Order: sequence, then C-alpha cells, then structure tokens
Amino acid sequence: MNLRKLIMLPGPTNVPDRVMVAMLNPVMGHRTPEFSVLMKGILDKSKQVFQTSGDVIVLTASGTGGVEAAITNIVKPGDKAVVTVYGEFGERAADLVKGCGAEAVKIESHFGDIPKIDQLEEAFEKNPKAKALVIVANETSTGCSFKQLKQAGDLAAKYGAYFIIDAVSNLAGEDVPFDKIGADVVATGSQKCLAAPPGLAMVAISEKAKKYITENPPSLLYYNIPRYLKYAKELQTPFTPALPLYHALDEALNMVFEEGLQQRIKRHTMCADAFYSGFKAMGLELFAKERARSNTVIAVNYPKGIDDKQFRGTLDRDHRVIVAGGFGEYKGKVFRVGSMGEVSRYHVLTTIAAVNQTLKELTGQVNSKNPTEVAKAKLAGL
Amino acid sequence: MNLRKLIMLPGPTNVPDRVMVAMLNPVMGHRTPEFSVLMKGILDKSKQVFQTSGDVIVLTASGTGGVEAAITNIVKPGDKAVVTVYGEFGERAADLVKGCGAEAVKIESHFGDIPKIDQLEEAFEKNPKAKALVIVANETSTGCSFKQLKQAGDLAAKYGAYFIIDAVSNLAGEDVPFDKIGADVVATGSQKCLAAPPGLAMVAISEKAKKYITENPPSLLYYNIPRYLKYAKELQTPFTPALPLYHALDEALNMVFEEGLQQRIKRHTMCADAFYSGFKAMGLELFAKERARSNTVIAVNYPKGIDDKQFRGTLDRDHRVIVAGGFGEYKGKVFRVGSMGEVSRYHVLTTIAAVNQTLKELTGQVNSKNPTEVAKAKLAGL
Repeated sequence: MNLRKLIMLPGPTNVPDRVMVAMLNPVMGHRTPEFSVLMKGILDKSKQVFQTSGDVIVLTASGTGGVEAAITNIVKPGDKAVVTVYGEFGERAADLVKGCGAEAVKIESHFGDIPKIDQLEEAFEKNPKAKALVIVANETSTGCSFKQLKQAGDLAAKYGAYFIIDAVSNLAGEDVPFDKIGADVVATGSQKCLAAPPGLAMVAISEKAKKYITENPPSLLYYNIPRYLKYAKELQTPFTPALPLYHALDEALNMVFEEGLQQRIKRHTMCADAFYSGFKAMGLELFAKERARSNTVIAVNYPKGIDDKQFRGTLDRDHRVIVAGGFGEYKGKVFRVGSMGEVSRYHVLTTIAAVNQTLKELTGQVNSKNPTEVAKAKLAGL
Repeated sequence: MNLRKLIMLPGPTNVPDRVMVAMLNPVMGHRTPEFSVLMKGILDKSKQVFQTSGDVIVLTASGTGGVEAAITNIVKPGDKAVVTVYGEFGERAADLVKGCGAEAVKIESHFGDIPKIDQLEEAFEKNPKAKALVIVANETSTGCSFKQLKQAGDLAAKYGAYFIIDAVSNLAGEDVPFDKIGADVVATGSQKCLAAPPGLAMVAISEKAKKYITENPPSLLYYNIPRYLKYAKELQTPFTPALPLYHALDEALNMVFEEGLQQRIKRHTMCADAFYSGFKAMGLELFAKERARSNTVIAVNYPKGIDDKQFRGTLDRDHRVIVAGGFGEYKGKVFRVGSMGEVSRYHVLTTIAAVNQTLKELTGQVNSKNPTEVAKAKLAGL
C-alpha cells in the first residue's frame, strides 16, 4: 500500500473510506437482476445530480472519454461548432470538433479569464448555422469557470444549436442545472466533485439531442450513445462495466444526497472562497481574474524565486499535502489546488497552513496576516 | 454488499481477494513518481503476458474499447480488411472496420466452428491489397477459438497486411505469443484470464504498427494510440487512469508470474478439458466442434425441455454458481461457462456437480457415468 496523503488535486481527489470499501462488493454478472438494481440507483441519482428529467448514461472512461462521446455523437463532418477556449480543455474540445471533420469556431480569451457572452453572440451572428455550442464549464487547467450558462443556453436555443457542456470538474461543486440552462449534452467524471475514484464518465442527454443522436448514430461502438440508451432501458450497459467503480460511484452518490446537492455546492463555494482569501492573505497573486474564478480549482501564481518542484516536493514530504503544478505553458509558474469532493474545513485549513509554512521556509519571509485565521473566517458553519 | 457467488461467466470472472484489496490503495496523483512506479510494473509485466518486446498501452475501457482502439488506429477510410466472423465479436470487429469507412471482407464459418486457413488465403488472393487481417482469437459468444494464429500471421506478412487480434477472452489462458506469431496489434481485457476486475483494456503494438500509427495518428483523442505511447515513455497516461483498477491489475499480474505464464495456460487447458469431459459424461452435447473448442469458454447445448431461466436460476439460488446463457440467436439454446482466471479443481468440480444436480432435478434423469469422477480424472496434478 502506498501512503495516504491529502489529495488536493483537481482530480482525482480524496475518496471517502466508505466509497473505497464499496469497491470490495463481490464480483457479479453484469447481465443479472442484481446489476440492474445497482444500475437503477446510479442512473436515478445521476439524473438528480445533473438536475435533468432526461437520460443519463455511464461510460467506463475518463472525463475526456465522456466529452469525446458528447461531441462525437452530435458533431459530424462538414458541421461548424462554436467552442469556448480559455484553457487546455477548451483546446481539447476544439480538437475533438476538428477530429469529427467539422470546423471549430474558437471563442478565446486570455487564459485566467473567460470569454464574454457578447463574443458568443457575435460568433453565432457570423455563423448562424453552427450546429453546436461547446462550453467548458470549468477549466481545470486555469482555475476559471464560465458562469453565464443560462445565457449561453438561450443563445444556442435562439440559433437552434445543440448546447454541449464539459462539466467534468465542476458538476456537483457548482450549479450546472441541466434542464434550467437548456443543455443538450453534459459530460462529467467520477473523480472530481463526486469524490469517487477515477474511471467513470457520466453523460446527460436532452430529449432533443436524444432524437438527433438516435436518428444519426455514430459509426463506431464504444461511444455510440444510442447503444447505451438502448441498454439503459433494460438497466444494463452494452459493454462490460467496471463493476467496482460502479459500486463506488453508487456510494458516492448516496453521500451527495445525504448532504443535499445544494448544500454540497454551497460547501464548495465556501471552501473556494476560503482558499482564495487565505492565499491572498499570504500575499500570493491569484491566477484567475475575479469574475472568472472557479469554485473547484484554485490557481495561484508562484511568487518570484519559488521553484515548483521544491515547493510541491516539500508540501508532499513534510505535510503529505499534494497539489498540482501548472498546465502546459504555465508549468513552473502556477500551482493549482483542487477544492472538490469531500473538501471541508480540515482540507482547506490544513492545506493553507502547509502552503504558508512551506513558503515561509522557502522565501524566508513572514506574512503580516495569519492566512489560516483569514480562511477560517470564511468557513463559519462548515 | 451483495452475495459472493462462484462467477463462472466468460468475464467478469472471480477475482482473488488480494487483487480486490489492492483497490484500497489510497488515491494518488497520476502525475507523480509513485504512479510511474505502478505504471512501470504494469507495463513490464503486461509485455511478458503478451510475449512481446514491443509496446503495450493500458486504456480505461472495456475489452471492446481495446478492440476499437486496435482497429481504428490501423484501418482508414477506403481500406479493406479481412475479418474472421464466427460469432458476435467477429461481427463487432467487422462493424468496427466498416465504422472506419473501410470494407470488411468477412471470412465466415458456421457458429460453433472456425474459419479455415484456406479461406483466409483465398480472401487475400482475391484482395491482395487488404490493409489488415483481423482475427478474433477466442469467440466468447460461441466458445470457439482460432488456433492457427502463426499461419495467419505468416499470411498477413506475405501480403504486407497488419495482423490485428482480439484476444480479449483468452490472453494468458491460451498461448497467444505476440512476437512469435507476427502480430501487429493485440487487445485484451483485465476481467478475463488475468482475473482482475473489469474496466481496463491492454493493447500491444508491434514496431511496424507503431511506425504506421505514429505517422498516421487518428483524429480523435481517447483511442489515440500515439498519445498513449508518448505518455507511456514517461510512465504516465494521457488521461486520468482508473487508479484502483491499475492497482488491481498490477496485483493480478503479480499472480500470473508467481504461477508462471506457461503453467497458467496449462491450467486453463486442463480445466477446459475437464469441463468438456464432465459435460459429455452428463450426456450433454457441446456447442463447438472439437477442432474449434475454446480453452476458456465452454459452450453447451441445452438438452430438450430445459428452460434457460429455470436452469440458471436454480444454479444461482441453490448453488450460487453463475453461468452465462447463449448469445444473440443462441439465447435459450446454449449455456456458457467461463473457465478462466483463477479457475482450478474447485471451480470445475463445484460447477460440474451443481450442473449435474440441477439437470437431474429438472429432467428427472440420472446419468450412468459420474461426471465429477470423469472431470476429476482430467485434473491430476492441479
């Protein structure tokens, strides 16, 4: 067994023991009534997490697999899709659109910020026949999230475009109410705000998208959503499901509803707020502009002279606190903290104390404010 | 927790406790040296299981995902591929070839039998420019396996075709020596002869295939083998891996080498032989022709008057022995026993005794031979 550490990564994140232990459920046949009971629980609860009356499917895949399924079932050769690009995962979404043989109309913003709704409007004015609007709801790579999902959904509806959302790293940690915002396909992953182990992706599908996808099924098998929908009717999966991960997801979903979805989102908001305040009290500069800041991934600029490897290595060795480095061109310039899943007082305060202590050691400077006290003030009631 | 049963399915199969418990390894970051240690162990051991000096990648996906990766990275629009079809998974392989926009030259045989090497030769004579030969090494749906893999590899080499093998349900249970048979891409799954939980697929790639795939990368992401190869060099994965399943696979691979790969294959052969003998001693008719019989999936025709649901329901309720029904058009006509993974004396004799008792009850007939004694005679030394 490797050491247990405080996993403050933007996924995978800490998994509660009862969710881990659920994986020890004995192997069962996946074409049995027992499996259908498990499947029914997962689908019913997943629909509530997505806040949809539509369908949900579960894929044995990473979050990227879920996003690939979402995009490839809608976007076809010759189509155009408007795609927000404000980080690595937006680039990936645009690559997937291009991989479908379609044109990606990229709506970009400086990394650390998010595209404005006016930019999307302009894109649709210029490309009124765009088949889809693809939005990354939360950019794991930059710690930014796109807040105007309802306005974006209205815009997509106005132009008759399918509204596809990558909510891999914020579903259940930020409000992404499928039906209310007029979403058509939303993908998420098991290892982020749901606090289950990695390996499953869930995709929610609107009635409108279901009709289109069913009438225009993709040519391959693994991400063939109509196949999953057909089997889901019988509470089965078309291909052998990753059984232990299903048991874990089921238990993780139980925990979501024991707490309450809205309370869980509120907890994520409070913890993010506490992280941002605590890091500012250390004199650190936040990577994301205030209006763009994510509820689940906290990106922080390194102060001058701090070496990424040394900083994260010390956090790991001395405090067993694991945070992520920067993504792509921000490697060495930024560190990212995942504030998701079971994140609460303990996780926030332990991480802040460890980061503060480590920076003090590495810079030799002492903060005038006490970052732990500042963060603690934001956590009243948690 | 659901009940522990004897899972005699053609996957998922029984998973040893120490493999299950390995899933409880604490969550780790997948961009850390700890993960690379795990990954190195899995890749090194997987290469030995595939019997290749080439590369292996691990996908978070079912076996079908692995086969989809194998085919879609090689077969391109306008290509032709020769595909053996002697069951459902051969049909799936042909569908995948067609899904790539290519032509599938189907080499069929009656289900319960396997195509002859002459048929393959003839197909290549008629289609000398076929880009690939796709063979299902073991048909889970019919309990048949294609034995002449070396001859098929020679044929593919003669015509310069890539040799792709679906060995999902027999790798490590039957000899599929990658390098010796001249394979180019072979896919397998975690939940069959390796006795790990379902959810991972491993794909081995020859130098020749690697060169082609790297120079002609697929347009999408999740099954983009060049991406996996690039990350594998750093002992990482491009997308978040299903960590608990990686730990389980690692432990399952340890068990393969504690036993020895050749001994494991021998054990599978002995158990299959014992199953076939035992079922014949019950007066049952085997579905597969003798020359086609699988080492890992035993397909048996139901005697007249036996109801599939009642038979398998009684086996489950009274003996907690789970076997599979027939696939597709053979539903209700055939039952299938998975003889794979940790299968040994206990599994074979318990299953045979339970099947014999159940059939006695349902038919009211008694066998003159003692099927358990007949099977036991085949298990000397195990």
